[in-house]
Amino acid sequence: MSKTFEVIERVGISTEGVNEAIKEVILEANNEKKVGWFEVIEQRGRVTSDGKVEFQVKVRIGRKLKE
Amino acid sequence: MSKTFEVIERVGISTEGVNEAIKEVILEANNEKKVGWFEVIEQRGRVTSDGKVEFQVKVRIGRKLKE
Amino acid sequence: MSKTFEVIERVGISTEGVNEAIKEVILEANNEKKVGWFEVIEQRGRVTSDGKVEFQVKVRIGRKLKE
Amino acid sequence: MSKTFEVIERVGISTEGVNEAIKEVILEANNEKKVGWFEVIEQRGRVTSDGKVEFQVKVRIGRKLKE
Amino acid sequence: MSKTFEVIERVGISTEGVNEAIKEVILEANNEKKVGWFEVIEQRGRVTSDGKVEFQVKVRIGRKLKE
Amino acid sequence: MSKTFEVIERVGISTEGVNEAIKEVILEANNEKKVGWFEVIEQRGRVTSDGKVEFQVKVRIGRKLKE
Amino acid sequence: MSKTFEVIERVGISTEGVNEAIKEVILEANNEKKVGWFEVIEQRGRVTSDGKVEFQVKVRIGRKLKE
Amino acid sequence: MSKTFEVIERVGISTEGVNEAIKEVILEANNEKKVGWFEVIEQRGRVTSDGKVEFQVKVRIGRKLKE
Amino acid sequence: MSKTFEVIERVGISTEGVNEAIKEVILEANNEKKVGWFEVIEQRGRVTSDGKVEFQVKVRIGRKLKE
Amino acid sequence: MSKTFEVIERVGISTEGVNEAIKEVILEANNEKKVGWFEVIEQRGRVTSDGKVEFQVKVRIGRKLKE
Amino acid sequence: MSKTFEVIERVGISTEGVNEAIKEVILEANNEKKVGWFEVIEQRGRVTSDGKVEFQVKVRIGRKLKE
Amino acid sequence: MSKTFEVIERVGISTEGVNEAIKEVILEANNEKKVGWFEVIEQRGRVTSDGKVEFQVKVRIGRKLKE
Repeated sequence: MSKTFEVIERVGISTEGVNEAIKEVILEANNEKKVGWFEVIEQRGRVTSDGKVEFQVKVRIGRKLKE
Repeated sequence: MSKTFEVIERVGISTEGVNEAIKEVILEANNEKKVGWFEVIEQRGRVTSDGKVEFQVKVRIGRKLKE
Repeated sequence: MSKTFEVIERVGISTEGVNEAIKEVILEANNEKKVGWFEVIEQRGRVTSDGKVEFQVKVRIGRKLKE
Repeated sequence: MSKTFEVIERVGISTEGVNEAIKEVILEANNEKKVGWFEVIEQRGRVTSDGKVEFQVKVRIGRKLKE
Repeated sequence: MSKTFEVIERVGISTEGVNEAIKEVILEANNEKKVGWFEVIEQRGRVTSDGKVEFQVKVRIGRKLKE
Repeated sequence: MSKTFEVIERVGISTEGVNEAIKEVILEANNEKKVGWFEVIEQRGRVTSDGKVEFQVKVRIGRKLKE
Repeated sequence: MSKTFEVIERVGISTEGVNEAIKEVILEANNEKKVGWFEVIEQRGRVTSDGKVEFQVKVRIGRKLKE
Repeated sequence: MSKTFEVIERVGISTEGVNEAIKEVILEANNEKKVGWFEVIEQRGRVTSDGKVEFQVKVRIGRKLKE
Repeated sequence: MSKTFEVIERVGISTEGVNEAIKEVILEANNEKKVGWFEVIEQRGRVTSDGKVEFQVKVRIGRKLKE
Repeated sequence: MSKTFEVIERVGISTEGVNEAIKEVILEANNEKKVGWFEVIEQRGRVTSDGKVEFQVKVRIGRKLKE
Repeated sequence: MSKTFEVIERVGISTEGVNEAIKEVILEANNEKKVGWFEVIEQRGRVTSDGKVEFQVKVRIGRKLKE
Repeated sequence: MSKTFEVIERVGISTEGVNEAIKEVILEANNEKKVGWFEVIEQRGRVTSDGKVEFQVKVRIGRKLKE
């Protein structure tokens, strides 16, 4: 049986904060297939047209290749 | 007309949290000139004399050179 | 008298958020010996068995070698 | 509705130049699904058997997870 | 015809050693689609419950997008 | 007399190619004050609404603080 | 109860190979206090006076601060 | 009142040594506006036409945005 | 027979563009001994006395140690 | 007998110069236990209240775990 | 008498494993001139036409400039 | 005529200080062939048997390939 993990990269986005951006992208990925671990690799953002700070958090997500 | 962006570096400071430190420095820069994007490049901090954790977040901010 | 600082590395863990993970590990270290400064050097995490995102924040902490 | 972006990694190849290698790989990815942004992360190459320089450009490509 | 390569990221795991962890993940990926090259980008591990060192090797794998 | 150099960071943008993006931002900076040297530190881009690849090149530019 | 992990840095040495250098340093640290995880951060070496290659592997080791 | 710091980048130059190159650029910046901290980020140099080693030290300097 | 490769570092220079700077240095090295592969590791430049942008591209070049 | 080395991190401080900051922290560590090697990993500083440049040099120090 | 060391870069190749790739390239360099130390800086590889994993290990090798 | 530069790597050693280690290795290289520029890329050291700090400075040196 395969013990290999796949590592995918995603960007979560939230105007609430860094935690919310991370939670959104991780829980969404976890719904597709169980997340083993994640690493935050970049934090960027912008100011939205209505003047809010938008947080963009890039994560690497490790999941079992075959469950 | 120039399409060039300038990139400046600032440190935002807050005892409330990482989000607040980012928001403060980004919105202040946005008031001077519209912020195109930002990148978080360093997170440091200290313990204040009254025992609070102070968050210091260094950001790079991209803005149109000439609006 | 020695002016040297030691730098130690720790990982703070919280299911509440990044701020809480940082505060926990920094204030715990500050109780042992006064913290001069800290640097966030890695943010990782996992999904707990009851479906929460766990934030793991690795910090370097600078403290006076001899107080 | 999901605001998450996926980030994939590809290598574009051209004997004409760096621009052509980038354009080829980005426009091909854009045909599959609209490209949000890309980052050049590595430039390598080789000399082909008929003595031409082959440019190999590795890019990270951000696209909406679900359009 | 497309000359583009895809780059995927996987983690191979073995209690025998680094070579075995690499071989397992690379040959498994090669069975799906011919591997052009790979890069070792991280080596981590843990001690298993029966006291063995488990090697976890993260690799980036380049393969032709379309064979 | 001061021998110090300032280092500023800018992003040049072009749909023609990497060379053009670099030339535009460097020559514009050189018109303000003579450029001593530059370093390319990041290459990103996007696909424009009319389907062209836009090259965004971030450069650090060194110039005499006082001419 | 503290959930904090300490991270220490050690160098394992072996003339047999990389696996042996890692195993030696990790199992020794595990005997002192249970190892949570480790990361290989540098591989160096030298040629011994009797002509053997000596492998020196630097690792970061994570362990519960208080068991 | 703003607690934000600006971070600027400069290169100090001296044929005497690294210390002198750093002192020159930091004290010159401190005369303009009080320096909070600095970081050495690059050390380069050249041989002058009369055969001396010229030290070029690039620093990032943090100063209060508004005093 | 030795399967070892040497890796050398060179800087190619051109006022025409990045491609030309790379081609010049790679083909020159290939004339001395067949180039196996190359990696672009730094791009710098300056403005020449007659106002042209000069591109300086640093490459690492891999070649068989003994052909 | 253990051949393992520990690696610790310290910051040496001097208003005289980089050499003095390094010497102070290394010789102090050597008095505790014989230093095998050291690596300079960061140089920072500040301007003291009486207008001197203070050099802060972060070093990693390797020492035999058990002498 | 010169105390300077030269640092050269080589890639060792083996289908047996990482240790063998390192040993081959280091002992070959040691035969030319005594090796002072080496650093592993990159591990790559490919699958050979007969389905074996080929390990390619890039090393930096320090040797006395003049023995 | 070739405009290519070679880049070589050397380590200078001195018990006097960082400046002396750099000067020694750069002037020695300049005697062989005129040095265009140098970059300091690593600073390490050890304590000598008579208790002195030995500074080891690794530099990359750029020189015209053909004068």
